Amino acid sequence: MQARSDTLRLAGKTLGFVPTMGFFHEGHLNLMRMARAQTDIVIISNYVNPAQFDRKDDLLSYPRDLEKDRLLAEKEGADICFQPDNLYETNHLTWVETEKITNVLCGVTRPGHFRGVATVVCKLFNIVRPHVAFFGQKDAQQAAVIGQMIRDLNFDIKLVISPVIREKDGLAMSSRNIRLTPEHRTSAPVFYEQLCMIEKNRLPDLSNTRELTERARHEILKIPGTKIDYISILSWPELTEPDNDSKALLIAGAVFFGNVRLIDNIITVL
Amino acid sequence: MQARSDTLRLAGKTLGFVPTMGFFHEGHLNLMRMARAQTDIVIISNYVNPAQFDRKDDLLSYPRDLEKDRLLAEKEGADICFQPDNLYETNHLTWVETEKITNVLCGVTRPGHFRGVATVVCKLFNIVRPHVAFFGQKDAQQAAVIGQMIRDLNFDIKLVISPVIREKDGLAMSSRNIRLTPEHRTSAPVFYEQLCMIEKNRLPDLSNTRELTERARHEILKIPGTKIDYISILSWPELTEPDNDSKALLIAGAVFFGNVRLIDNIITVL
Repeated sequence: MQARSDTLRLAGKTLGFVPTMGFFHEGHLNLMRMARAQTDIVIISNYVNPAQFDRKDDLLSYPRDLEKDRLLAEKEGADICFQPDNLYETNHLTWVETEKITNVLCGVTRPGHFRGVATVVCKLFNIVRPHVAFFGQKDAQQAAVIGQMIRDLNFDIKLVISPVIREKDGLAMSSRNIRLTPEHRTSAPVFYEQLCMIEKNRLPDLSNTRELTERARHEILKIPGTKIDYISILSWPELTEPDNDSKALLIAGAVFFGNVRLIDNIITVL
Repeated sequence: MQARSDTLRLAGKTLGFVPTMGFFHEGHLNLMRMARAQTDIVIISNYVNPAQFDRKDDLLSYPRDLEKDRLLAEKEGADICFQPDNLYETNHLTWVETEKITNVLCGVTRPGHFRGVATVVCKLFNIVRPHVAFFGQKDAQQAAVIGQMIRDLNFDIKLVISPVIREKDGLAMSSRNIRLTPEHRTSAPVFYEQLCMIEKNRLPDLSNTRELTERARHEILKIPGTKIDYISILSWPELTEPDNDSKALLIAGAVFFGNVRLIDNIITVL
């Protein structure tokens, strides 16, 4: 892969990169379309990164379909599908860690998750050597961490964040959705509805955010078998408590429907 | 720098990189000569990296002479001297950490040192984008950490380690040597003599290493004002306790002469 990228760069091509963990849905395909429109060569990676899973059952049950993924990527005009078996050599010792912004939201309950993400993306950047990398807003904290890493480690890579792609009923597309029970699949859209409720009702001075997140929690918990990891409002992309200097807000949540953990968010300009 | 390297790479040039903290001595010049002989374009960086200093007094008293350095580098045929004022933006949050091999030798008494080294070298690799990087064996543990980082983070960079360059009396060249008192400058060669003593007298089964390091300590401590940080024998480049699988040995030490901390080592094949 490194040699191919080198050759393509020497030929003056602009390389676009969509790193994924596979099992493509419209969200992934949209990232590929954006890459196709903006760069000469579209490279997709498909690798379920063990280092970013904090729960072994989640890693083992993570859905995979390499063959179908490859066909879908080809259909979107991807030029290269990079599907490594394993990216960690025996005695892997080096980790990329971003402080502070990994200690909020998903970072609180998923220890080591963002260290695993930052490390594998750093590795993939060095292997694929893209000019532009495409990440989905669905994983907003991940996008913030990668943006911070690109800046802090001086990667010469432009980060493009694509909007959340949703089912018709509003549920954010996710590879994990197929693991929902039929009942939870039917009720899951309440999650996004409540994020919209917060966005719609927040006061300009943010004085009612606590009240709104409590109301959202209450509405979601009415559904049997749900458990809330967090519903939070932070400044974007700093992931700090919002203040007068905040330019945008991230309204984000993580909710368990049974044993399936879903995340979703809205970014709104202040 | 990034743009220049990009242009040079696109022109098919091989880039050699010598990262330094300046105040050049023969050790640095030797690295430049090796780079000059092996690559098309020789790039030197000259940056005293604050993130790798665990003691503020050491950072403040670290000798600097950018102007003289530039002339010396030019004389050795360096093509580019990269002398950034500061490589860390406000709110720098991302760090590169290598586990285990940073917890021995200098890592024990210099907390955060190798995290600072790995991070700045990662940044410099992304800015300079070399094909080959040259490091001195004098900082053997640093070279081992960088080698591990290159492998673990998939940098497409060849690491070349140059031998220790010594004064006529055997003292390893170091930017810190000019801070020695005249008395300590005269007695400092005992440090290398004792490392040689260990190499010469070690039994093939390594059964007498403890006795030899004790003898070396004893000899060095005869000099007034010395303090020993460590005299250690580890397997190279794994930096673990030597065993039957070890291919090479690192005989390394760190000794204070007054408040000047010197390091030195010998690598010997088993």
